[in-house]
Amino acid sequence: MDFKDLAKEISSRSKIKINRKNIERLLGALRKTKLPWELVDLSDFPVPAVFESMKVLEEKEIISISDAGFKLTARGKEVVKDIHPVEDISCSDCEGRGITLEKFSDLEKKFLRVQKNRPGAIRRFDQGYVTPKTTLSRFAVAYERGDVVGKEIILLGDDDLMSIALGLSGLTKGITVVEIDKRLTDFIQETADKEGFKINVQTVDLRHPLPKEHVKKYDAFITDPPETIKAADAFIGRGIASLRAPGSAGYFGFTRREASLTKWYDVQKLLLKYRIVFTDIVHNFNEYVNWGYEEETRAWRLSPIKVRPRKNWYRSALYRFETLDGFRGNFKDYGEENIYEDVESSTT
Amino acid sequence: MDFKDLAKEISSRSKIKINRKNIERLLGALRKTKLPWELVDLSDFPVPAVFESMKVLEEKEIISISDAGFKLTARGKEVVKDIHPVEDISCSDCEGRGITLEKFSDLEKKFLRVQKNRPGAIRRFDQGYVTPKTTLSRFAVAYERGDVVGKEIILLGDDDLMSIALGLSGLTKGITVVEIDKRLTDFIQETADKEGFKINVQTVDLRHPLPKEHVKKYDAFITDPPETIKAADAFIGRGIASLRAPGSAGYFGFTRREASLTKWYDVQKLLLKYRIVFTDIVHNFNEYVNWGYEEETRAWRLSPIKVRPRKNWYRSALYRFETLDGFRGNFKDYGEENIYEDVESSTT
Repeated sequence: MDFKDLAKEISSRSKIKINRKNIERLLGALRKTKLPWELVDLSDFPVPAVFESMKVLEEKEIISISDAGFKLTARGKEVVKDIHPVEDISCSDCEGRGITLEKFSDLEKKFLRVQKNRPGAIRRFDQGYVTPKTTLSRFAVAYERGDVVGKEIILLGDDDLMSIALGLSGLTKGITVVEIDKRLTDFIQETADKEGFKINVQTVDLRHPLPKEHVKKYDAFITDPPETIKAADAFIGRGIASLRAPGSAGYFGFTRREASLTKWYDVQKLLLKYRIVFTDIVHNFNEYVNWGYEEETRAWRLSPIKVRPRKNWYRSALYRFETLDGFRGNFKDYGEENIYEDVESSTT
Repeated sequence: MDFKDLAKEISSRSKIKINRKNIERLLGALRKTKLPWELVDLSDFPVPAVFESMKVLEEKEIISISDAGFKLTARGKEVVKDIHPVEDISCSDCEGRGITLEKFSDLEKKFLRVQKNRPGAIRRFDQGYVTPKTTLSRFAVAYERGDVVGKEIILLGDDDLMSIALGLSGLTKGITVVEIDKRLTDFIQETADKEGFKINVQTVDLRHPLPKEHVKKYDAFITDPPETIKAADAFIGRGIASLRAPGSAGYFGFTRREASLTKWYDVQKLLLKYRIVFTDIVHNFNEYVNWGYEEETRAWRLSPIKVRPRKNWYRSALYRFETLDGFRGNFKDYGEENIYEDVESSTT
């Protein structure tokens, strides 16, 4: 079976560029699960293209689709015979993130308690927050890289509550949150007051250039942009604009569930133009809590089987970069433009 | 104390671009070690700049230097007081690599036995090989990413003996080694014969374009280039030339011990031009065995204290990328040019 032709057909029908490797991973994943969200998780390419693949594979009698899920046909079993069996061999201790939280057990306890009453994710702001362990692990990586102790840090959007983890640690010089959702800024401010740490919170729409008082002020920023080129450019570009000097650091999450590698390429090229250099890209570092509004999303409409996810299925890579001499940020104004959706996105 | 001025002075004297963050890490590291190689390991920037920093810090009476090592003066202790304490919080289970070798315990046993009689590193070819656990972990990452099972793989230079790990696994479709050192090609061929796996071995100088029979033939390549721009371009560019199709994968190691982040930036920019996209950059993934010819290197001459390293101190990041539509490799001929040394290199 020529996976190249299959990839071509699915690319053309879904308008999302996928390749042989994507098909191989998908076919390998079909040996492990019959459920749509687990399949996307294991396949690691954009949701609309995964679900389009299901249609094509059904037409080619490689799978059958029923309410019980996807099933390889006799022909399908033949096709996947020599395919790589998609397996999770990530380290169970650190869940593949490479760092330990041992040093931060007190912080972990406090953070787990405090975040319990957090506001839920809402669709209006494309929210979908990470697990508490992910937030703490991000904190630990930033700590190890020297981006926490004695540093001024800005969070551009913070439904992951990084500001609270940083605040509870007591290690930073200053923490600023710019965020569009008042429920979140209120929760963060109240938590800071109750737990006794200082925080600077402001309501900001990142489609507009960063307010002047935040430009060239910070040692590090953290953000988790929606996965369109424009949103990535806006959120990360504002982040770069907020950084103080060469050697400052930026962190962001970027998934393949809503971005093909072609889009990854465009984002990498775009960011290098700002004169930053990538220091880390950690696969599947960020694990997201199922956000509860699944049924309202395009992903749900596209899914050939209408079942809710049983476990967390949405992951993204953690990117870290540093600024170089002559770095510059993004000051473009996107007005009221919808910069949050494109053909590869599906969860907003 | 203004680290910006310090960074400027060291950059100008060493001709290597470093920044405030490098100085912070170096000062933090001085609280942990007084020995030169450990200091480089913890500081994570080019050796010549680290050792130049020692001179500058001595002149500024922040440290004193004796045969016993570097020591913070009273003034120095004041300076480092609020600096981030450089600490190892990487996961002890996977040594920060994020993957487990559990599934491969048989392979691990075999590989550890077989590699015992391997040829040592020699200076002539800028050799310095990684620990067996590093080689096995690279194998595991490539396995997880779907670049091993049923794949044609080429090693461009192989003093890390990846070909043997791949061969012993019995999982690949084919393994090719192009390598300049006959001691290594002989060892690999003999091992393959003894252990009963097939391998295609050829003596090749990567300064010249890849022989035609290897162009556009492989699903994945692995290389570990010397850290100059030209050598990276040659080794990795030949690797890309060897790849078959979009969705093929490249793996290479790149250190900060001999490359500033400015050089990292140049390499990232250069590689994106070949239309590849970075999928992973894993910090300190590769750990190198001390190569035994330390005293003959520039690093040794530059070191303010002539002591041999007590433990492995040289690490590099693991990069992985995938090819996109329209990717192309490097076919430039460097003739007999010395592409292996620049101002930031020091271990050849």
